[in-house]
Formats: sequence, C-alpha cells, structure tokens
Amino acid sequence: MTEDQFLAALLSRLPVANGELVVPPGDDCAALRLSPGQLLLVAVDQVVGGRHYVDAGPDAADPAAVGRKLLARNLSDIAAMGGHPRYCLTGVSFGPDINELWLEPFFAGLLALADEFGVALIGGDLAATPSDNVASLTIMGEVAEDQVIRRTGALPDDRLFCTGAFGDAVRTGHHLSFTPRCAEGQWLSQNGFANAMIDVSDGLLIDAARLCAASGLGLALDTQAVPGRSPDTPLEACLREGEDYELLLAVSPAKADALTDAWPFEETPLTCIGMFRQSAPRDVCDLSGKRLARHGAPGTGYDHFWT
Amino acid sequence: MTEDQFLAALLSRLPVANGELVVPPGDDCAALRLSPGQLLLVAVDQVVGGRHYVDAGPDAADPAAVGRKLLARNLSDIAAMGGHPRYCLTGVSFGPDINELWLEPFFAGLLALADEFGVALIGGDLAATPSDNVASLTIMGEVAEDQVIRRTGALPDDRLFCTGAFGDAVRTGHHLSFTPRCAEGQWLSQNGFANAMIDVSDGLLIDAARLCAASGLGLALDTQAVPGRSPDTPLEACLREGEDYELLLAVSPAKADALTDAWPFEETPLTCIGMFRQSAPRDVCDLSGKRLARHGAPGTGYDHFWT
Repeated sequence: MTEDQFLAALLSRLPVANGELVVPPGDDCAALRLSPGQLLLVAVDQVVGGRHYVDAGPDAADPAAVGRKLLARNLSDIAAMGGHPRYCLTGVSFGPDINELWLEPFFAGLLALADEFGVALIGGDLAATPSDNVASLTIMGEVAEDQVIRRTGALPDDRLFCTGAFGDAVRTGHHLSFTPRCAEGQWLSQNGFANAMIDVSDGLLIDAARLCAASGLGLALDTQAVPGRSPDTPLEACLREGEDYELLLAVSPAKADALTDAWPFEETPLTCIGMFRQSAPRDVCDLSGKRLARHGAPGTGYDHFWT
Repeated sequence: MTEDQFLAALLSRLPVANGELVVPPGDDCAALRLSPGQLLLVAVDQVVGGRHYVDAGPDAADPAAVGRKLLARNLSDIAAMGGHPRYCLTGVSFGPDINELWLEPFFAGLLALADEFGVALIGGDLAATPSDNVASLTIMGEVAEDQVIRRTGALPDDRLFCTGAFGDAVRTGHHLSFTPRCAEGQWLSQNGFANAMIDVSDGLLIDAARLCAASGLGLALDTQAVPGRSPDTPLEACLREGEDYELLLAVSPAKADALTDAWPFEETPLTCIGMFRQSAPRDVCDLSGKRLARHGAPGTGYDHFWT
C-alpha cells in the first residue's frame, strides 16, 4: 500500500460536507459554519527535527527559525483559503538534547510571527520523547463564507497563476524565512479573482495535481514560464522540490488581465504558468502534452511508507 | 529553570481574556465565544511512544488502543469543562518501524471512539521521524457559556468530589482503556453542581494543586477517603501516579448532599475527598495539616527538563 492509497482510504472514512462542516477534510483547511455567513478554518501541520529542519551539528537551525516555520507553514494553509489567521495551539515533543535553552527561542520565534499576523497562541502541550523533536500546530482562522476559496472551483480554460518563485527553498534558507501569503490570499478572496487555490508545500507538480484532482480537470503547464528562485535554479528543482509556500490559483480567462493590472503586491511576483482543461485522466502535462504528474500516481508524491 | 517556571513565563506572554477569548490559556481548554452564548472549547494533547505507551517488544500496546488513548485524553479535557466534544485534528509522526500496518488500526481505534462520542476527525498531517512515534490531537468542543466549568470557581468550604478511582492506571491498562467522563461532566454542568473542575491526568495531588492555584484556595484532602483502583492499591499510587482521567470538582456545601442523591451514573463512583479553605500559600494538605503538594513547588510536578 502506498501512502496515497492509505490516505485515500482514511479520507473515505471521514465526514463529508454537511450543514456545519462546509469544507470537509481534503482541502488546505476544513471549514466550519459556527455562526451564519462566517467560516472557521482549521488545519494542522508539523515540523520534525532531521526532516523539516537540521536539528544537530554545525548546521543546526536556529530554534527561533524552527518555531517561526511551524507557524508559518500553517499560516500558508489559511492563506490558501483566503482566510484570516486568528488562533493556534501547539504540541511540542522533544528529546533529551532539548531543554529550556532551546524551547525559549523556539517559542519566541513562534510568538513573534504570531504577533505579526495577529494570531494568538491559546493552547499547548509539552512532552518528552526518547530521542526526536516533533512539533505540531493547529491553526484556526476565519473567512466570510461567500469569499472562501477551495481547491474544487477551477473551470476549463482558467489560467493557472502562481505567486513568488520556486526551487532551492532548502539550500537558500527560504523554507525557514518565507513570508506566508496571507495578505495576497485575503486580497484574492475579497476581490473574487481566484476560482480555486492551493499552497505549494510538497512541490509545484504535486500540489498542482491536487488542484486538478479536486477540480476534476487537467492542466497544461508552461514549464518555461515557471519563475525560479534564481537564474541558476534548475527547472526540476522548481517543479519538484517543494517548501516554496507560494500560492497556485485558477483565474477565469476574462479576469486574467484585470488581475495582473490590479495586483497590488509589488514585492510578490504574480505569473501565469498554465491553463486548466477538460481531460481524463486529470494529468498535469507540459505544453507538448507530456505527462508530468497525476494525483495519486506512483512517483508524484512523497511516500512516508516506502521512501 | 524548572518546567513549571518555564511554563509560567510562557503563559505570561500569552493572551488574557477578552471579548472573544472567554477562557484564556491555563485551564483544561481555552474557550472562544464565536457565537452569542455559546463557547468553542479547544485543547491539545499528545501521546509519545515509549512514554505514554509501550511501543516495542512483547508488551507493545495495540495500535488501536494508542489511537483510542490519544483521543480519550483529549475528551477528558472537554469533560472537565462540562463540554460536548465535536471535532478533532491530529498530527502523527512516526519512525521507520511504523507503516500502514500500524497506522490502520491506530486510526481505526481513534475513529471508533470518535464515533462513540460524536466527534468528527476533520484534519490531519502525517510526517516521518528519524526514530520516535509522536501523535498530537487538537480537540474542539462546545458548551453553553452559562454552563462552562472552569478551574477558577472553587469557594472556601466547597467540598472536593472525585469520580471513579485512582492509582495503578498503567499496570492495570486503565490508562489505555478508560472511558472519558464526558457524560458526567455534561450532567454536572447542566445541573449546576460544580463550581470548579479539572481532570486528573498528571496525578491527583498535582491536579488538585492546580485547582487550588486557579481558585486561590487551599485544600484539606482526606487521604483515607480517596478511592483506590483496587483494595491493594497503595495510597501513594492514588495520589501521585496519574493517568486516572477522573474528574475533581468543587461543590458548594449546601449542594453536596443533593449531588450525592441525584448522581445518576451508577457505574461511576462519586466520592467526597476534601474541603477547600482560605489559606496562603495555596497548599494541598492532609487532615493533619501536613503539606502534600503546592502548584509550582519542586517535587509536585513532573519536570521534562530535569527528569
């Protein structure tokens, strides 16, 4: 069994949408309608020492950067729904090499970013592990129900836009220092520009394939248009490395020019990199029609079980 | 620095109560007023392999029991506020010895208890660790604002009642198989019997001391009245071992007899084991006046940093 198969089986046992659970599990966040017209967005994400950051040796990450990253990657999930982050809770488990000298800057880094984004830490748990360092964070945000952006809304001929640049995220330290695209996501949602959206954490191709699967469409990706982090960044790094925390969004062709003209974020590039289309199966292809990725297909996703 | 000192410093940097955050961090759950008169309760708790369950060798815990425990200990936090559990999210990190053969029953155990308690799993994250197995769960529940039971409401002369029995929780397997006291907590909140409440996870004395600290009172504990799990369970095990997941509650002396008479849970013992009183410092003492515990004092709590 691959991890994708395991997750698909698990997801099939989880609740579907109902009057209160407006967005069920499977999007960037789940969404609950706890008061009329307003959605509570919730998601959880983790950072693991030795996997998501270097936790020992001369290259060990600054604990403040680790705490910052834990919150930042969760903020990115709120951004991808067009939401405003509000509250978070964190469970931190640490091995024998960690004590208050590491935890103090870890929480300082987390809380500094929380302040910056108007988020309050309202719950937590500390535990000891035999050897590893694992931190989990649950984010809660909100968005007006008529402004929420899901993965499911892309239409044929919609243009695929991306924010920012891709590749070399680990080598350059971007994976620790990135700014979550909350302002951009909120602006897109308030101005009705995005039919569907996702954030890129696992890799541009993997996450584009998730957008395709959720919307029931294929995608023609203009790989030459994908912006690299630097002129030297290889295309493969842009497509597959992940940790970019940029937004991918589907925009109606009639609105594409207006979006480019109105985009107010001078420091955040916005680039058209593809077009959705009817296709079965729902593949991500390049402009020559060569398949690059398909959600759930072997080789497209990272597999915790077999890698 | 002890862990209690670290946590006290951290807590002092977290938000205080405001119009929306009705119960700030420091109780069993935080509580948010997202719609008038109704509170959203949120809390997070973890289970760690080799700490909260045996994860290797012939005594390794059934993964279904581990998944069940992860949810159950969070349900206990909702119970302690008088709430109804509704939703949960879980972050699971697992080492190289774990694959879908372990994760499948883990989630099956979690979801079976979720069904039993009317809880929906609406978010999750899987990650790989170098060696350890850590799972975190965020619970969300609800309670009417005028029925929420906090740690802060005990009054002088209030009686301390406990549900169930104490001690030997690990040896007997109770720590994996216990039934969270949600029904009892809800009944207590709906019938206005408890002025303050907490669940016992770290140990009767530690958690009684937390109730005392939050309510600004001392406690005279009738140690001879504390019900042990079996006739052979030593008193020290009842007082200090933890993992009991029972409720401790403060009851006005005028209501104590009525509570005992009305208590509808035939299979859940309810026992009066002490009395709150004005005292500075806010110690838990036995009936002879000997101090047994004080919140924050060395020796009262488990210290992840120094043990």
